[in-house]
Order: sequence, then C-alpha cells, then structure tokens
Amino acid sequence: MKKGLLIVVSGPSGTGKGTVCKELLAKLPEMAYSISATTRQPREGELDGVNYYFLTREKFTQMIEEGGFLEWAEVYGNYYGTPLPMIRKKLDAGQDILLEIDTQGALHVMEKCPEGIFIFLLPPSIKELEQRIRGRGTETEESLQRRLGAAKKEIQVGRKYQYVVVNDRVNLAVERIVGILEAEHRRVAQNLNLFEVLEHEGK
Amino acid sequence: MKKGLLIVVSGPSGTGKGTVCKELLAKLPEMAYSISATTRQPREGELDGVNYYFLTREKFTQMIEEGGFLEWAEVYGNYYGTPLPMIRKKLDAGQDILLEIDTQGALHVMEKCPEGIFIFLLPPSIKELEQRIRGRGTETEESLQRRLGAAKKEIQVGRKYQYVVVNDRVNLAVERIVGILEAEHRRVAQNLNLFEVLEHEGK
Repeated sequence: MKKGLLIVVSGPSGTGKGTVCKELLAKLPEMAYSISATTRQPREGELDGVNYYFLTREKFTQMIEEGGFLEWAEVYGNYYGTPLPMIRKKLDAGQDILLEIDTQGALHVMEKCPEGIFIFLLPPSIKELEQRIRGRGTETEESLQRRLGAAKKEIQVGRKYQYVVVNDRVNLAVERIVGILEAEHRRVAQNLNLFEVLEHEGK
Repeated sequence: MKKGLLIVVSGPSGTGKGTVCKELLAKLPEMAYSISATTRQPREGELDGVNYYFLTREKFTQMIEEGGFLEWAEVYGNYYGTPLPMIRKKLDAGQDILLEIDTQGALHVMEKCPEGIFIFLLPPSIKELEQRIRGRGTETEESLQRRLGAAKKEIQVGRKYQYVVVNDRVNLAVERIVGILEAEHRRVAQNLNLFEVLEHEGK
C-alpha cells in the first residue's frame, strides 16, 4: 500500500513557518499535522493534544529511552520533541503528515527519515526578516540582533534541504508548497497502483 | 551558474507523447526542444533542423565514434539518435531542454544523465490505448495487436522513472508536467543564488 509523505517545513527563525503551515493545513485538510511534545507548562489557552502534548519529565525521558521521538532537544531546561508513533501510524495508513520544525530539528529528521520531503522557507531579504521580527514588538534590540544573527547562520543550512520556497507573501509561499506536494504525489513510488491496474487489465 | 534541466518525456507507443510535448512547448516557450538525428530520408514536408537533423550514414557513424550521441539506435536499417552537443550547450546556458523519446532510448539516457527529470506518460487504460491506436486507422489488426503487446511491456519499464503522468486529457497531462517542472525549479540546486544573495546581504 502507498505510504504517506512526511513533509518537513522548516526555516530560520522569523521566516513565518507557523503562518505558512497553518494556511497550508487549511488548504490541504486531508493532511495530518505532527503535534510536538514538551515538558514545559501549558500557557494560557494551550490545550493538550492540540498545541502540544504536555508530558512530565519522567514520561518524556522514558519515551526518549524507548526511541519514541523522531527528534528531541532540550531548550532552556525544557524538553521538546516530535513523537514518532503518531507519525508512523499516519504514514503507514497512507496519510501525509506535516512537520513544522526548526532547522536544528530538521537536520535530525533528515538523518532518521531521508525519504521525507524537506522544504526550506526563506525570507525575501534580511531587511524584511529584521522588519518582521521588529514588528512583533516583543524583542529588545539586543535579542533582536541575536535572533537575526542566528537566522543568518540558519540560512546556510538550507542548502541541505531538497526544496526552497521564498515566503514573500504567505499565499504565494503556500501555493508553491502545494505545487511541490502535487509533484511529489506524481512520483512513481506514489503511483504503483496505476501500473498494477494497467498490467492487470493488459492480461 | 544554474544549469538547465534535461526533461525526458517518454511512455509506451500510442500514449500521445508527441501531442503532449507539442502542447508543453507551446506553454513553456522558453524551453528548448531536442531535435533527433536520423539517416532515414526526409518525408514530404519534413525540414532539416526542424523535424530531424538528416545525416548521411557516414556522418552518423562518425558522430557515434566521437561520442556525439546521448543515445542512438538502429531501427529497420536506419539510425536514430539524440545529438549531445546541442543539449550540453543549452543546459550549460541554464536553459531547460525537452527530450521526447521512446522507452528504450530513455533507459540509455538514465544511465548517461541520471540528473535528468524522467517523466513517464501512461494511458488511462489499455482499452483507451487500443482505441487510440485503432483510431489512427493506419494499422492492420495484426500490427495493432503487436503494438499493443509492445506497449504493455513498455509500461513495466515506467517504474524506473521518477514521475508518472496519466494522459487522460492532453491539457491535464500538460498541466501536471508543468507542475512537476515548477517543483523541480524549486530544488535547492536550482536556487543557490537565493542563498548567496541573502548571505551577501547579511554581511
């Protein structure tokens, strides 16, 4: 049976992957979304199983030991990770699953799942990236400069991905990704049934 | 500098690759088309350098010896081949080039140019394929059955390609190929300039 595609959308901090992935899911409702697990406390309004799976440290480390994460990382004392069982289940059932992840996590996923579709989002320009981060109004000048510096380094990692999409406008970026996924669905491995049907008819 | 893409459209006899490629070229006029060489006599209305490069046997065998063909074959005493120099020139200049070729030739191209984009056209059904060949009215029942048998064998080869496109309606098949090419143009290797521009700006 046809397996689903693991679609990894990633990119430097501030490129807008969150917004792009949200619109992408709205446009492709049959696609599943990989929900991350974390040990941090839920923020107001965040729901378990919707925004994150909120796990205890014990449960999280147990899952690490059992190989239950596609990738995981510790950030400021909290664990974050991508649970593997749900992804496996969806892919085996032939459903595509979207994974929105930072560039570091994506590199781990590349190692474990090289058959994934890796899409790197780029800002149209560094100036634009700076304006977007500044526009959020949540950063001090110092942390803004730090984030910009990090983003510039992250951009270099993009060469390891398969596809690159410029996020100049969200709807255009989403369309481009939809196009990439349509093409990926025309790969021979995704269409072996076509051959089988024709060969069966031909007998 | 960015290299062009070698786009190979192939498929079993009677699938309509000729019509699809003609429409594809009309839709993507910036794409070049690989003109085959042959030693057979021009038919009425056929022009040298348009339909084929018409070569003498001597010239053709000389080009074979010089490695001047991407692939070649002898069919009913005539040579047919895909001249390499023009393809190289276009690709090096960053231009895409379309190669419409039979399944046997495509296998040779796969060996020599694995970086090409290999698209396999499928008929919607064997019944439809039979009707199309019959509809041409140029075949005896015997030769029709022979062509159908050959086509069924050729279909199996399609699993070696990268993409598969069903030619149920020409305009749909063309749109699907255009989508595949758009996605291929979003590959990182085709967009290294984006990274360079951003990294330069970031300094």
